[in-house]
Amino acid sequence: MEKQKLLTLLNQVKNGDISPEEAVLQFKLQPFQDLGYAKVDFHRDLRQGAAEVIYGKGKTPEQILGIVKAMAGQGGKNILITRMSQEAAQLVQQEIPLDYDPICLVGIACPQPELTAEGTIVVATGGTSDLSVAEEAARTAECLGNRVERLYDVGVAGLHRLLSNLPTLMEAKVVIAVAGMEGALASVIGGLVDCPVIAVPTSVGYGASFHGLTALLSMLNSCASGVSVVNIDNGFGAGYLASMINHMAK
Amino acid sequence: MEKQKLLTLLNQVKNGDISPEEAVLQFKLQPFQDLGYAKVDFHRDLRQGAAEVIYGKGKTPEQILGIVKAMAGQGGKNILITRMSQEAAQLVQQEIPLDYDPICLVGIACPQPELTAEGTIVVATGGTSDLSVAEEAARTAECLGNRVERLYDVGVAGLHRLLSNLPTLMEAKVVIAVAGMEGALASVIGGLVDCPVIAVPTSVGYGASFHGLTALLSMLNSCASGVSVVNIDNGFGAGYLASMINHMAK
Amino acid sequence: MEKQKLLTLLNQVKNGDISPEEAVLQFKLQPFQDLGYAKVDFHRDLRQGAAEVIYGKGKTPEQILGIVKAMAGQGGKNILITRMSQEAAQLVQQEIPLDYDPICLVGIACPQPELTAEGTIVVATGGTSDLSVAEEAARTAECLGNRVERLYDVGVAGLHRLLSNLPTLMEAKVVIAVAGMEGALASVIGGLVDCPVIAVPTSVGYGASFHGLTALLSMLNSCASGVSVVNIDNGFGAGYLASMINHMAK
Amino acid sequence: MEKQKLLTLLNQVKNGDISPEEAVLQFKLQPFQDLGYAKVDFHRDLRQGAAEVIYGKGKTPEQILGIVKAMAGQGGKNILITRMSQEAAQLVQQEIPLDYDPICLVGIACPQPELTAEGTIVVATGGTSDLSVAEEAARTAECLGNRVERLYDVGVAGLHRLLSNLPTLMEAKVVIAVAGMEGALASVIGGLVDCPVIAVPTSVGYGASFHGLTALLSMLNSCASGVSVVNIDNGFGAGYLASMINHMAK
Amino acid sequence: MEKQKLLTLLNQVKNGDISPEEAVLQFKLQPFQDLGYAKVDFHRDLRQGAAEVIYGKGKTPEQILGIVKAMAGQGGKNILITRMSQEAAQLVQQEIPLDYDPICLVGIACPQPELTAEGTIVVATGGTSDLSVAEEAARTAECLGNRVERLYDVGVAGLHRLLSNLPTLMEAKVVIAVAGMEGALASVIGGLVDCPVIAVPTSVGYGASFHGLTALLSMLNSCASGVSVVNIDNGFGAGYLASMINHMAK
Amino acid sequence: MEKQKLLTLLNQVKNGDISPEEAVLQFKLQPFQDLGYAKVDFHRDLRQGAAEVIYGKGKTPEQILGIVKAMAGQGGKNILITRMSQEAAQLVQQEIPLDYDPICLVGIACPQPELTAEGTIVVATGGTSDLSVAEEAARTAECLGNRVERLYDVGVAGLHRLLSNLPTLMEAKVVIAVAGMEGALASVIGGLVDCPVIAVPTSVGYGASFHGLTALLSMLNSCASGVSVVNIDNGFGAGYLASMINHMAK
Amino acid sequence: MEKQKLLTLLNQVKNGDISPEEAVLQFKLQPFQDLGYAKVDFHRDLRQGAAEVIYGKGKTPEQILGIVKAMAGQGGKNILITRMSQEAAQLVQQEIPLDYDPICLVGIACPQPELTAEGTIVVATGGTSDLSVAEEAARTAECLGNRVERLYDVGVAGLHRLLSNLPTLMEAKVVIAVAGMEGALASVIGGLVDCPVIAVPTSVGYGASFHGLTALLSMLNSCASGVSVVNIDNGFGAGYLASMINHMAK
Amino acid sequence: MEKQKLLTLLNQVKNGDISPEEAVLQFKLQPFQDLGYAKVDFHRDLRQGAAEVIYGKGKTPEQILGIVKAMAGQGGKNILITRMSQEAAQLVQQEIPLDYDPICLVGIACPQPELTAEGTIVVATGGTSDLSVAEEAARTAECLGNRVERLYDVGVAGLHRLLSNLPTLMEAKVVIAVAGMEGALASVIGGLVDCPVIAVPTSVGYGASFHGLTALLSMLNSCASGVSVVNIDNGFGAGYLASMINHMAK
Repeated sequence: MEKQKLLTLLNQVKNGDISPEEAVLQFKLQPFQDLGYAKVDFHRDLRQGAAEVIYGKGKTPEQILGIVKAMAGQGGKNILITRMSQEAAQLVQQEIPLDYDPICLVGIACPQPELTAEGTIVVATGGTSDLSVAEEAARTAECLGNRVERLYDVGVAGLHRLLSNLPTLMEAKVVIAVAGMEGALASVIGGLVDCPVIAVPTSVGYGASFHGLTALLSMLNSCASGVSVVNIDNGFGAGYLASMINHMAK
Repeated sequence: MEKQKLLTLLNQVKNGDISPEEAVLQFKLQPFQDLGYAKVDFHRDLRQGAAEVIYGKGKTPEQILGIVKAMAGQGGKNILITRMSQEAAQLVQQEIPLDYDPICLVGIACPQPELTAEGTIVVATGGTSDLSVAEEAARTAECLGNRVERLYDVGVAGLHRLLSNLPTLMEAKVVIAVAGMEGALASVIGGLVDCPVIAVPTSVGYGASFHGLTALLSMLNSCASGVSVVNIDNGFGAGYLASMINHMAK
Repeated sequence: MEKQKLLTLLNQVKNGDISPEEAVLQFKLQPFQDLGYAKVDFHRDLRQGAAEVIYGKGKTPEQILGIVKAMAGQGGKNILITRMSQEAAQLVQQEIPLDYDPICLVGIACPQPELTAEGTIVVATGGTSDLSVAEEAARTAECLGNRVERLYDVGVAGLHRLLSNLPTLMEAKVVIAVAGMEGALASVIGGLVDCPVIAVPTSVGYGASFHGLTALLSMLNSCASGVSVVNIDNGFGAGYLASMINHMAK
Repeated sequence: MEKQKLLTLLNQVKNGDISPEEAVLQFKLQPFQDLGYAKVDFHRDLRQGAAEVIYGKGKTPEQILGIVKAMAGQGGKNILITRMSQEAAQLVQQEIPLDYDPICLVGIACPQPELTAEGTIVVATGGTSDLSVAEEAARTAECLGNRVERLYDVGVAGLHRLLSNLPTLMEAKVVIAVAGMEGALASVIGGLVDCPVIAVPTSVGYGASFHGLTALLSMLNSCASGVSVVNIDNGFGAGYLASMINHMAK
Repeated sequence: MEKQKLLTLLNQVKNGDISPEEAVLQFKLQPFQDLGYAKVDFHRDLRQGAAEVIYGKGKTPEQILGIVKAMAGQGGKNILITRMSQEAAQLVQQEIPLDYDPICLVGIACPQPELTAEGTIVVATGGTSDLSVAEEAARTAECLGNRVERLYDVGVAGLHRLLSNLPTLMEAKVVIAVAGMEGALASVIGGLVDCPVIAVPTSVGYGASFHGLTALLSMLNSCASGVSVVNIDNGFGAGYLASMINHMAK
Repeated sequence: MEKQKLLTLLNQVKNGDISPEEAVLQFKLQPFQDLGYAKVDFHRDLRQGAAEVIYGKGKTPEQILGIVKAMAGQGGKNILITRMSQEAAQLVQQEIPLDYDPICLVGIACPQPELTAEGTIVVATGGTSDLSVAEEAARTAECLGNRVERLYDVGVAGLHRLLSNLPTLMEAKVVIAVAGMEGALASVIGGLVDCPVIAVPTSVGYGASFHGLTALLSMLNSCASGVSVVNIDNGFGAGYLASMINHMAK
Repeated sequence: MEKQKLLTLLNQVKNGDISPEEAVLQFKLQPFQDLGYAKVDFHRDLRQGAAEVIYGKGKTPEQILGIVKAMAGQGGKNILITRMSQEAAQLVQQEIPLDYDPICLVGIACPQPELTAEGTIVVATGGTSDLSVAEEAARTAECLGNRVERLYDVGVAGLHRLLSNLPTLMEAKVVIAVAGMEGALASVIGGLVDCPVIAVPTSVGYGASFHGLTALLSMLNSCASGVSVVNIDNGFGAGYLASMINHMAK
Repeated sequence: MEKQKLLTLLNQVKNGDISPEEAVLQFKLQPFQDLGYAKVDFHRDLRQGAAEVIYGKGKTPEQILGIVKAMAGQGGKNILITRMSQEAAQLVQQEIPLDYDPICLVGIACPQPELTAEGTIVVATGGTSDLSVAEEAARTAECLGNRVERLYDVGVAGLHRLLSNLPTLMEAKVVIAVAGMEGALASVIGGLVDCPVIAVPTSVGYGASFHGLTALLSMLNSCASGVSVVNIDNGFGAGYLASMINHMAK
């Protein structure tokens, strides 16, 4: 399309409909995306699984409904809304089919589950308190077309819980390790598996956990290879990146 | 081998050479790796490209030589040594073929370059001062069998330098974004490409860069999706993870 | 005037109306401003646009009304009140004409819009969540007599949004770059324009954004020239400084 | 020129020398700067005063000499080199005229002093230890064509030193306030003058000055209007920004 | 049991019921704990005093009741619940005998007090505000079968209060030193006694106490020997560790 | 008295009423204060002005009333209660005469104002928002028998306000400088006066003021001599220390 | 002895050799230790193993020699010197028998190894770089009469190394877990053993390890029970505390 | 004198020697100190003891010699030079009588010891490593005419050392408490004495002492009244302030 627009412009020049000088002006005024570069739109559309994403925090229920309706009107499906308040969910549900989870605050409007990648993503947590962040990651990945296996409450202070799930870990294409407090889970899993590990520090803990800072620093210093880190409580980011890698995988 | 060992033990039980009770005891005393789990050895051998890795810092030249000779004696090739001092390189070179780069302090003993993945890894830096970290990443990835494209000094304060290399970025399977100071490179690249971006903050900068802390925090807060972060100056970690993903890719 | 006061005093000495010794005492007791130095009053009156400024936070609605009425009584116009609560706005509006914006909490009492500078100030934000800080900056600048152009939601993760507005940026006399999270907007804009860029970090974000600290550090480390930084969420400070520069401009 | 290049391309399309499709491809492959946007080159050339800038730190003397010779060969003058080691200065001086200051490590190759702005920039410091940073700012501004007035050692613990220089401060178009320790100088000057104040925290101090962090935070929290801040010890950045504003001024 | 399971498997191999190859597969799939290592269950059961522990924070009253009932159903006694809300306590009390303290939020379900260690644990606090943390430690230790002596409000700013209790301190097997603000209590007690001192920093204080960080750092730097530290406000951890040491003691 | 107690004991020994061995035991069991050292009671009684002090925060209204009544029952006067809630004040007022200030939360029970020192303590603040902390300092000092002069809202961004009060400052025996934000007031006053300056950072500010940390660091780095610092918002501490010095003064 | 001294004094009073008044004075002037309290000398003599301890850092070789000779002259044995430079060791060795380890900088003068406790202390490290701190702990414990088992390089990124040593861990009375980087070792060991775990963060690592801060925070947030923490690199403190507990053990 | 100068000027006006208009100009151009305010010179001259102070750090030996000679030439005595290098001392000693201490780097040129205050200042330290900072404080105070009593190595981990010196502490007019590590000394002394305590945190310590930050925070949070704090290692500041208070004392 953009390419078409550019071709049209150039054909207009060729045919003398507009002068080269006028075209120069147009190029200057056109937004960059009109030039037809590969990623001509940067609108972060998530082509894997054809989902769209809305960051719900700081938006009113009405604003969210408006955006969802606009997207749904253009045939959008699996529209992901993160950090979505219950109020917003209730409003949206009155007009649009919505799959909403009140714990992780993730909503999927016009849900049409479809597996578009072959591999499995494992989401593991250190404790039960990390669940909401983990679910944000898991549901993001599922919404983007991935099979997700959950391994919750397998923290390193009870290693057998983790080790008894080794086969599940071994088969993953990507592991998302979600942990607060000392965040050691990422290192231990990183030493057990051969695939990329995405570490998500959570703000779970008290005292010197400093709202996730300790887990964050700990994960960044992991002595295991293949581990990288996203922001504190950023379940969405981990799920999105995991989906990207899983869809690349053979 | 480990599997063989286990089979032998079980056959001894079968044949009555040892009693089941004695076998129980053996299982208890055997290191975990003897049980034949998938990742039966955890020695971090980097099967992609058949490389071995030695972290050179804090080891004497003699220790490094000893380890390299032992590995080479068992037929090792593409043995990667990171943070290798010039003294260590000089000592090793007297006895073993070594490809050494004094800027990023990476040595590859018994080098036998071989491409084992199809995709390309792009290593981009914000400035020329990030070069040593970037080279550690690039050489790690190359040593592990990857094709690497270098885009150095494409920092965001001169966007045209980055934008003029868009086609190269677009073709990458993974991008490693290396930057100090404000570390904005990761966000900008993350907004331009569809593949995973591994952000490496560097300790380059002065004043309120706080030895890489600012770049680290900045990268963790990237508003672009698909970005994850490794430790400050951890070129090796980024190169290793990039190789892992690149080898997974279709 | 102050000079006049000093002259009077000195003439009194000359005429013998008061002794030199008494004058010495007077000098000691007089406030510094009475000595006739150039900036004889430091009352922060904003002569550009003739506005007065009240920092609303920590003042009761009654106190604010009192100050506004006193100023208005002396013919004040375009009286700027920042961080003004809705309660205060409602109280003031009952007695004084007030232009109030409930999002950025800026009120302008006795508004008499007037352009006193020729150039344009561009206020750009990374995301929609930075809007309240940006509006504080924009309205401050407008209240002080400047033409303001708003470029909201042009964050670096979608570069085309920024680049398609290059002509607007290019024409600015000053750019105010408002961004939370990783704060990269300031660097990218700083690399695109030739005029001063005032960077305003916002407390928008979560996790390792640390309430604006990351954006602040990132902006201070900008690799672009011509960028300086004000306090987190300090929209007023940026708008005031931008107005100062814009009024200086040829 | 760039505009010329674009016109040429479009004329080639018009004349049928190349097809519109080929032109599309060329647009894609051309670096962004070839499209003729206003800031067609982003090479940070400092048109005010026609100076070029080289950041000397992390570059070898030979590299610096090479760059300087290349610039000088193209007729460059007033080529600014910051953080230039004495070794580099000695090497460059053998082949190129160089004005070098060993205290602030600023060199100006092919110096041709010329005033290109009418106003005066005042550089003030809290103590004598801030001198090297202040000189980096002052010499940068001078090299860019500005008249600079130095007010050194006028820290707030001896207010009379500052107050006795009020007339000088009052006449400035921009003031650069350089201070370490508690950095109060910026606030005090900000309350005295009507022009923009650029605050430069320095790493001067000990103990809880934390290498300039205290001065940085203090300056960011200035209760005076019109104050903005650059990175710790960033004399160059302050001098550059001050020159930008001074050249804009009526 | 686990050992039995392994024996069964091995006997099956011996008898030819399953082949060695099949056994290899089973070993791989069995959770680690099935292999009969010494700490075959890691369920953190607190064998000293036969107590079970539930961390109440982040669990609903219904969840806590469910867990308590399950434990009580299996004959559990002295079931410790920390950070238990009053709502949870009220719910549990309707069905299960519960000893609940609303100040330190510790509940003991099915209480059956019993001394299982001979020594005494002293819990000392710097001020009365540290009481809730101290009580969490004291009740944890009591629940685990220890004799506990409380020395509250013996902060170092009134040394005589501490010194007049020297005989009590001298007889302790372990001392738990609980303090906020400057946390000096641990050092002073560490210099007075011969037994291990477990320091618990509390978040009591204001301003530069930074929610316990100052006390934490202070305690870690104690110049007295025999002092170790747990997390801020971690009364449970201190009580548990003290009990461990007290039960070891001759 | 204590001395008397010791003498009695020794006389008992002398008279053979108790054996030396029994006396040894008594010494061991006696609290340290019984030995007759000068500061025989450490109960922090504030002998200057005969005031007693209660830190109200974290105590229930009933507890505070109880303590006040006990003190008043023993003839206490000028009983100082800091951080006293309005609820506590209302309860106490029903039974005891109380002078209460709801802004700084200071109450004085059984007030009997009396000047016991000759000099004057000046309490200065940077802004009106620092008022509650300043009043805590001022009322503490007054309660302890000092004459207090208030100089509020004399921040350094409007120097004339401070300079016009120089005579007041000059006559002070001690100055308490209360300021938030950048905390420069302490340095400027420290440079103007010859007497001790006690700096009180306040948590007033936003963004990078970090709840008083910036003011605290700034004050610690004051380039003026004679300045020392107390904790953030610690008005009481400053008032108490100022009183101590003022009572020492000739 | 001290008791004897006190008895003597009291007998003098009894016999009228000195008056009660004079005795009061003596009590005042006598150091506290002369009163015969249980810990009559606080000289930190390490009665377990009869060792004495000298902190070598900041003392000249001559000073160390002097102290050692004084101690040895009074029959001291197993005199422990930590942070002892090689120069100091060489000087001491010329006159006194010394067992010195140049890696952990621990010297033991007049060594007379003797086991005084029954249990075993295990010292485990995450990597080989933690060795010097671990050895300081191990040698301190040995010098104090303990049997020490070393488990070096058993970091969590290669779990099998740790798990294959489970029997050794299980038999320990105390475990000292020494680790830098992410410090996860303490949590994993804490989940495996029933005895106290003393965690020693080390300054080993780079980038976001922040000289041991990350390991320290991680260990303080350990989700395993029975773990407490000492200062960064404080091998001596851990060894001393471990010895204290080991000597208490049944 | 300054007053004289002002009188002269005013008499000139009275006599018609200069016109009032000319006088206005003179007032403007005169430095503030010429106006005759009480602290007419702010040159920080230390009138107590008639000492002058030079901060030696960052000044060359030649510069220091120059300043000292200028001062000595005007009859200066007891000229205090802090942070003075041995090189500077050697140079100065060749021309001027100098009392130099190489441990605390304090030099006193033209020394003429003289007691100008009646009271005693006690300087106490936690350990022997704090000695250099303590000596800077002690010598500063002595140079300013005070009697100083040193109590070194009386840290809180061996309370008897401190308590046995209670009489000395009790007689002090001011106590300077110098300590690194956990800095508890200030609190303990603050609880024992009735006079002002000036706390000086030192950078002594390792690991989590963070170069004095821990001691600084600890001292700021002292639960004892009458304690204030100066910058890390700022012995001079403490000595100067102590002298100020001591000279005020009755």
